[in-house]
Amino acid sequence: MSAPASPQELRKLIAASSWTGPTAGVLDGYQQANLAVVPRDLAFDFLLYCNRNPKPCPVVAVTDPGDPVIRLGRTEADLRTTLPRYRVWQRGELVAEPTDITAYWRDDSVGFLLGCSHTWEGPLRTAGVPVPHAADSMAPPVYVTDRPTHPAGRLSGPLVVSMRALPGHLVARAVEVTARYPTGHGAPVHIGDPAGLGIADLSTPDFGPPPRLEPGTVPMFWACGVTPQLVLPNSGAEYVITHYAGHMFIFDHHVDETP
Amino acid sequence: MSAPASPQELRKLIAASSWTGPTAGVLDGYQQANLAVVPRDLAFDFLLYCNRNPKPCPVVAVTDPGDPVIRLGRTEADLRTTLPRYRVWQRGELVAEPTDITAYWRDDSVGFLLGCSHTWEGPLRTAGVPVPHAADSMAPPVYVTDRPTHPAGRLSGPLVVSMRALPGHLVARAVEVTARYPTGHGAPVHIGDPAGLGIADLSTPDFGPPPRLEPGTVPMFWACGVTPQLVLPNSGAEYVITHYAGHMFIFDHHVDETP
Repeated sequence: MSAPASPQELRKLIAASSWTGPTAGVLDGYQQANLAVVPRDLAFDFLLYCNRNPKPCPVVAVTDPGDPVIRLGRTEADLRTTLPRYRVWQRGELVAEPTDITAYWRDDSVGFLLGCSHTWEGPLRTAGVPVPHAADSMAPPVYVTDRPTHPAGRLSGPLVVSMRALPGHLVARAVEVTARYPTGHGAPVHIGDPAGLGIADLSTPDFGPPPRLEPGTVPMFWACGVTPQLVLPNSGAEYVITHYAGHMFIFDHHVDETP
Repeated sequence: MSAPASPQELRKLIAASSWTGPTAGVLDGYQQANLAVVPRDLAFDFLLYCNRNPKPCPVVAVTDPGDPVIRLGRTEADLRTTLPRYRVWQRGELVAEPTDITAYWRDDSVGFLLGCSHTWEGPLRTAGVPVPHAADSMAPPVYVTDRPTHPAGRLSGPLVVSMRALPGHLVARAVEVTARYPTGHGAPVHIGDPAGLGIADLSTPDFGPPPRLEPGTVPMFWACGVTPQLVLPNSGAEYVITHYAGHMFIFDHHVDETP
């Protein structure tokens, strides 16, 4: 597949089923987002959960209940068809991984778009900080921590983090750059000793590939969008729909722009 | 009244009705907040409205429905008694301005605490930027603009702004300092020509005293917490409770601290 020229073009390719792959490293500099669709009766709890946990769950936009179209600045897109792949959960069980959720969208569905770390991978590279996993389209290693998130109504669960290990002279720069992007999970939640987050062994992540840990590098941990993806299916909700890992929604606005 | 030593002490004085005055310039450096209490059936719309309009409505904390106690970091306080004065609206009509809302709190009440510009008045003074109205406990002039906010469900209305006029050499500094405090409404939404916001005459604000406009100063406009106070009573809600202007909730955390 050739690279699309704009988010709008990519979303058209996706809606026509011509693009079904992941979106890491695609259209550098545009705001990418995780998706979570929940029933209206869980929507207040989930929006409150996001507000109480803005680092793992930075809200970029929320649809009006029942309306599958997200509108934010120049972006106007039907969430049922403009992500490359989805995951559908019913009462906590994964029931489908479709490329279109038209059949699953309901009158009471509310769609949440939460910022993701793809947002700052471009700015990090520009700042001279290598992001190894992005180059080969691999996800970073992801760990479930022993730190609880702030619960809201029926929603609770542990903080999940992603890890990148950087040489000492780049650690502060990586903090500076990522701190500028709250919709990319912002600055790290923890730097250094993994035990501080209850992570016993860096070489066995809960998700993603084991990291290559070069001597002299320091592990840096950022809040991760997997956090709500663990919490939501466990909520007892009748249904929850999320994006498929790495297959994100891309907005029309640049990450440095207020939409 | 002598100055309280801590937010906790001030809240005790308020709960004992020993403090009934405004909170501007009190306990510099602590996060102050506007209050809005709405019925559960309006809570999702209002939280969404705040998320879509973070500059006028920066959410600091939200109670669990029915629970009058706000918990955030070290702060634990009963919202019914720990603000100096309130306003109670029923179906859009102002019905009371009590110093205690115990009689008005209901099983379906949800309390929202939204950051306010008192938050950055201390940092501005520290940075050498004078904030004239704070010195004499006066509110800034406030204007209703012709710019609509982003609606959410039953909630819509114009953006309301507060104005401070500063000499040219302090304008950029004031932007830098206030931008650091999203829970104080962040950076200005507009600088210079009032007509750009549909304000015909600076000398006749919609709320607050007329400004003294020194020659060579530039008007700077920040999103204002009056925005939701106009929107909420007009929503048709059975009831809405807000703080009385200038009579804020004070948290236990400093504005530079993550609670």
